[in-house]
Formats: sequence, C-alpha cells, structure tokens
Amino acid sequence: MTLIFRKAVEADLPAIVRLLADDQLGAHRETGGTDLSPYRRALHDINACQNQFLCVAERDGHILGTLQLSFIPGLSRAGAKRGQIEAVRVARAYRNQGIGRAMFDWAIAQCRAQNCALVQLTTDRSRADAHRFYDSLGFTASHLGYKLKLDPVHDNTDSPLTNPAD
Amino acid sequence: MTLIFRKAVEADLPAIVRLLADDQLGAHRETGGTDLSPYRRALHDINACQNQFLCVAERDGHILGTLQLSFIPGLSRAGAKRGQIEAVRVARAYRNQGIGRAMFDWAIAQCRAQNCALVQLTTDRSRADAHRFYDSLGFTASHLGYKLKLDPVHDNTDSPLTNPAD
Repeated sequence: MTLIFRKAVEADLPAIVRLLADDQLGAHRETGGTDLSPYRRALHDINACQNQFLCVAERDGHILGTLQLSFIPGLSRAGAKRGQIEAVRVARAYRNQGIGRAMFDWAIAQCRAQNCALVQLTTDRSRADAHRFYDSLGFTASHLGYKLKLDPVHDNTDSPLTNPAD
Repeated sequence: MTLIFRKAVEADLPAIVRLLADDQLGAHRETGGTDLSPYRRALHDINACQNQFLCVAERDGHILGTLQLSFIPGLSRAGAKRGQIEAVRVARAYRNQGIGRAMFDWAIAQCRAQNCALVQLTTDRSRADAHRFYDSLGFTASHLGYKLKLDPVHDNTDSPLTNPAD
C-alpha cells in the first residue's frame, strides 16, 4: 500500500500522542494518552490557523508517522516565507524503512508549493541519528537553537497582545 | 521618552528594511530598500495571520528596533504552544543600551500572555555576541538549527497543500 499524507483530524489524536510519547525525549514530556484534552485543544488551535498543517503518514489505515508543518511569512531575506518542521515521529516498528525520508520529501514539496525560500527545523543536540538524517537530506546545521521554558499558566484564556510600555 | 512596542504597519517598511540590511549577515540578503514590493507582500501575509506579530520598538517617533513573534500551536509537550522570535535587530547607533533586552522582555511577556510553554529562536552560529545575550536572558542552546535553502519560484501564486501520494 502507498503511504498517504493527510491533515490530522481529532480521531487521529490517540495514535499521534502514542507516537509523540514513544521517543527517547518525548517519553518524559507527554501524558501518554491518558488525558487527551490538552491535545484536543491544541489540534483545534492548529487547524484554526491557515499556516499550520499537522500531517499524519498513513498506510493501510494505520498511522505510521506524524510531523507538523508551519509556514512563517517574514520580512527578512527579502520577504522570504519559511517552512518549519516540528514534532517529527515515525512508529518504532517502522523506522529505518524510508518512511521518515518520504515524509520529508512530502514536507519539502509542500514548502516549495507555498513558495518558501527556506525549510527550517531544530533538533535536540542529543539526537545524533536525527543529525545524520538531516545532513543526508541536504540540511545545514548553520544555527544554534535556543529555548526558554516558561512556567505554565493554566487559565485557558489567551490574553490579547498588550503593550507593557503604555 | 519611553520605548513603545507596537505592530508594524506599511509606513514602517523602509525603516524596518534598513534595520534588516544593517547587519553583518543581513547586508548580503536584503535589497537595501530599493524595491519594497516583496516586503510589502510579506507584511500583508504576516498581518493576515493571527499568530504572527511583527513588532517595532519606537522612541520619540524613531524606530530603533524590530523583531517578529510567531505563536505556534502544537501537540508535543502535552499540547504546548510555542512563541518563536525571529529577525531581531536594533539600530546600530542604539546598540548596547538595553534596547534589545527591553525588546526581549516585551516579547517574553507576550509569550506568557499567550500561555506559551516555551520561547524559541535560532541564531547563526557565527553571531557570538548574540549567543552571550541569549545566555544572559536564561535561554539554553539545547538544539541545533538546520536550514535547507529552496530555489525561489516567483509565480506569486501559492498552491494549495497537495498530497503527492494520491
């Protein structure tokens, strides 16, 4: 059967969360599927934005992989749009069979179709296998990826953008 | 005068493009303000997306800095929203006066207000001053930032997302 790439829907959430949790780093960061409500809310936010595309790779009715594509319009590099890839996972039993490469071929084709000048991603420094994979796809590790964790605020209401200088 | 942070409008484009070009790397990547049309198109795309905020830092009617904030909803890390900061510039004559720090304080406050669990950015490996600055703000360089340049396609019509596996 052919690998199909399609937009994730709510019924896919248990399978996607299992993929996110079945990972050397993700195992410590996901609820493991016991409480789907934060994921349901996040999927709603993803699908409410025309620049987000949460993809599942499916074969014969089974979800074998997932990634998220974000299109980021910007002024720099003469108004270049960027395609950003996050949260890439392939089911453990199907790794090293070319599925990740097929997912990236698909994702990069989407970025070309959206006139992106650049595809970008960050990957944890500890993911040595991933680094070799991205090198093999032609990516260059030209940047450092900085992260700052914020304390969670769980009031579920987003504030409008404010101007603290006012 | 107080530093004001506000959303960029079309009249700000010449000043913003000058800031983008007045940079060790940007000097080779921007048109330098001779042709604003790609920037105008990009600003339209930025302002058409509720998750993008192109900010200018203004004092006494002069634009001293700019940065772009992108809010990225996602499933991983239990449905965590991320705030991403790109294209940070401070006017040369006003560097090392705390303006960059004030801009980041503002940007991080916006990320908190939007319930982001994480603020992220990538910076070129060659920007040693920037690395010290981000370290001082509490960011951790835990990731590698990979980029893949795509050949530009200048037909100005974005294709809908397709499924090459169909």
